[in-house]
Amino acid sequence: MTDHAELIQRRQRLLGKSYRLFYQQPLYPVKGEGVWLYEADGKRYLDAYNNVVSVGHCHPKVVDAICKQASQLNTHTRYLHDTILNYAERLLARFPTHLNNLTMTCSGSEANDLALRIAREVTGNSIALVTRWAYHGTTSSIAELSPSLGISVGQHVRTFAAPDTFRCQGKWLDSLKLTLDNLTLKGLKPAALIMDGVFSSDGVFVPPADEIQQAVDWVRQAGGIYIADEVQSGFARTGNHFWGFEGYRLQPDMVTIGKPMGNGHPVAGLVARSDLLDQFGEKQRYFNTFGGNPVSCAAANAVLDVIEDEQLQMNAQHQGQRLQHNLEKLAARYLSIGDIRGSGLFYGVELVKDRESLAPATELASMIVNAMRQAGVLISATGPDANVLKIRPPLVFTEEHVDLLTDTLDKVLLRFEGCY
Amino acid sequence: MTDHAELIQRRQRLLGKSYRLFYQQPLYPVKGEGVWLYEADGKRYLDAYNNVVSVGHCHPKVVDAICKQASQLNTHTRYLHDTILNYAERLLARFPTHLNNLTMTCSGSEANDLALRIAREVTGNSIALVTRWAYHGTTSSIAELSPSLGISVGQHVRTFAAPDTFRCQGKWLDSLKLTLDNLTLKGLKPAALIMDGVFSSDGVFVPPADEIQQAVDWVRQAGGIYIADEVQSGFARTGNHFWGFEGYRLQPDMVTIGKPMGNGHPVAGLVARSDLLDQFGEKQRYFNTFGGNPVSCAAANAVLDVIEDEQLQMNAQHQGQRLQHNLEKLAARYLSIGDIRGSGLFYGVELVKDRESLAPATELASMIVNAMRQAGVLISATGPDANVLKIRPPLVFTEEHVDLLTDTLDKVLLRFEGCY
Repeated sequence: MTDHAELIQRRQRLLGKSYRLFYQQPLYPVKGEGVWLYEADGKRYLDAYNNVVSVGHCHPKVVDAICKQASQLNTHTRYLHDTILNYAERLLARFPTHLNNLTMTCSGSEANDLALRIAREVTGNSIALVTRWAYHGTTSSIAELSPSLGISVGQHVRTFAAPDTFRCQGKWLDSLKLTLDNLTLKGLKPAALIMDGVFSSDGVFVPPADEIQQAVDWVRQAGGIYIADEVQSGFARTGNHFWGFEGYRLQPDMVTIGKPMGNGHPVAGLVARSDLLDQFGEKQRYFNTFGGNPVSCAAANAVLDVIEDEQLQMNAQHQGQRLQHNLEKLAARYLSIGDIRGSGLFYGVELVKDRESLAPATELASMIVNAMRQAGVLISATGPDANVLKIRPPLVFTEEHVDLLTDTLDKVLLRFEGCY
Repeated sequence: MTDHAELIQRRQRLLGKSYRLFYQQPLYPVKGEGVWLYEADGKRYLDAYNNVVSVGHCHPKVVDAICKQASQLNTHTRYLHDTILNYAERLLARFPTHLNNLTMTCSGSEANDLALRIAREVTGNSIALVTRWAYHGTTSSIAELSPSLGISVGQHVRTFAAPDTFRCQGKWLDSLKLTLDNLTLKGLKPAALIMDGVFSSDGVFVPPADEIQQAVDWVRQAGGIYIADEVQSGFARTGNHFWGFEGYRLQPDMVTIGKPMGNGHPVAGLVARSDLLDQFGEKQRYFNTFGGNPVSCAAANAVLDVIEDEQLQMNAQHQGQRLQHNLEKLAARYLSIGDIRGSGLFYGVELVKDRESLAPATELASMIVNAMRQAGVLISATGPDANVLKIRPPLVFTEEHVDLLTDTLDKVLLRFEGCY
């Protein structure tokens, strides 16, 4: 604890106040392996939150790919190299055929930023449509599209209700319609609708396909395009599909990808219709110094290898079903569980003060997240009221890990139920 | 060549038209080592252009640091970790004491984007001031500050003449003054002046310190802050100093760093006065998923190790002097060399049609860059007229490499002189 206090002081002194830490008692891991994070004293934590390390912490195949390529060549895309082409070919094969071009960036923020820039250029419109508690990234223009950061959205952004399947099934469409009607009244048109594959910061929602289809139809009729943000929900996380948008039986105009793409190596990208990129390219250039370098591509290629070799999409589906089953058993016993929702290994457990008022149990969620951490299991909370437990483990989770997670949640709920 | 044609076709099909290649005959390196890039047939190229791999291609100490950390732990800054603190402590010791906080990002674009966001937040002003052919990055808001991309600057951006020491010594200050006066007339104030340490895309200029001091004074008096963009000129490149701004004997309010920071690993950052970050942090949060992860920090730490161990700042100074000397000898023989300027291992050679008109020799520059590539030496051209040879080799350049570069330039100039 002395070390921790000293580290925390050094952080504040060197990095400043904007660097926040998870948990009342921050974690200080020194080693990662598979689904585990280890502190220096050997205590291990089941990682049920970090979806960046989607194929498991320090997966040897990814590490080897990085080491091998880093020791051979690492340069930019203004020279020819086959790693980016092999990766693009393989990745694009996992998309509908009209999504036929890949642009590589370093972060999901850069990918969403570029997608928005292209949308604005090709439509000639400026308004971006996002859900009310969306998070799409941290660049200036994308922070404006991220009301969950707590800042007011920009003048070129309009928000609508999230597709909340728990409190107001389907009602969000009325909100979107109203937003679009208000734009029309002012003679404005949308550039783009940007939606998560699984609505994450809004509270982990997977709405019915026909609702999403309706939303996209309206926006396209109004002159906007549809950007699917798969930064969190992509790369097999949802189990049933490789990309979250596939569950909605939809054809996005652009798709952004990131977090798990390199299992921690900073790599992300934009998959788009080539006609949109061509239109953009006629007026503007785009070059990303680090984007698509051979090492990033080697890491990304290795991640696809592991997902395929270890059948992680099927595993996400299988373990997700077990997780849902286990959570439902807990819901039958604990009244504070108001709703369980998600897909594959991306779940939300919404906590309520009671099942009549459905008032959000924000404090309880915080107590549970911290108690779980003390008990050796890492999760977090999300949603506008931070009352939705967010469970998003590496895809290499086994039945044993699912059970450890829900058993621990059981013990923690037992301790807190009634005392909030 | 068949392979190259096929690769080029695959690129166009998979990556789209915005992916441009260097050189009429694109390079296809498969291995990098020190100052050399190798093609598959064993032909090697002297790299005199890529400042990302500043300590040399695939430097074993950097590769080892990446491999070691990647196999042990790679996660984010919401857990405690000492790599980022050790790096921050060491890096900040190389800055004036008032620049006391580090925020880590993945790219220089993200760093400049954040700097601008902070400047706008803390000053309450929106206007950014940049030189007329500036390049500061690729996010939506920073592309607006990058007129060299060929797009019109945004309504919140004003440009002024670059400090062109060749054609109009000192005159740029009149341009800046006029820009500031025009703002005042409209009741507007600047948020920030953003300037490269070595003015790169404008044509490689290192103006006198008193001119830069005057510019910064005026902008501060008008309510703006000074952001030093050290993404290209930082990390010992200028030889005399570790950061380009130090040559101007100035105290920036924020400094952005990137490209060579991880020798190719995607890592960048913002060094700022903590009071500015605090003010920003009261209203907004900033978190970068990959930024400051242990592997990025390990790479960045190793780069500092190598710069120190191999005394690369002193080497940049020494080799830069030799480069200047050799270039001056060429200038005495070739009338197309209008000007030689730079610092350390960052030089520009401005080519002119004749020494009376000083008309830019754009075609000649392109011919020379391509002929150099054919002769096994990699450089590029920059400036609004693309007539300035840009020489920016790894800092591990030796006398032998400097001489090979200038001897090759000699041969190429001999071939072209008079035929443009």
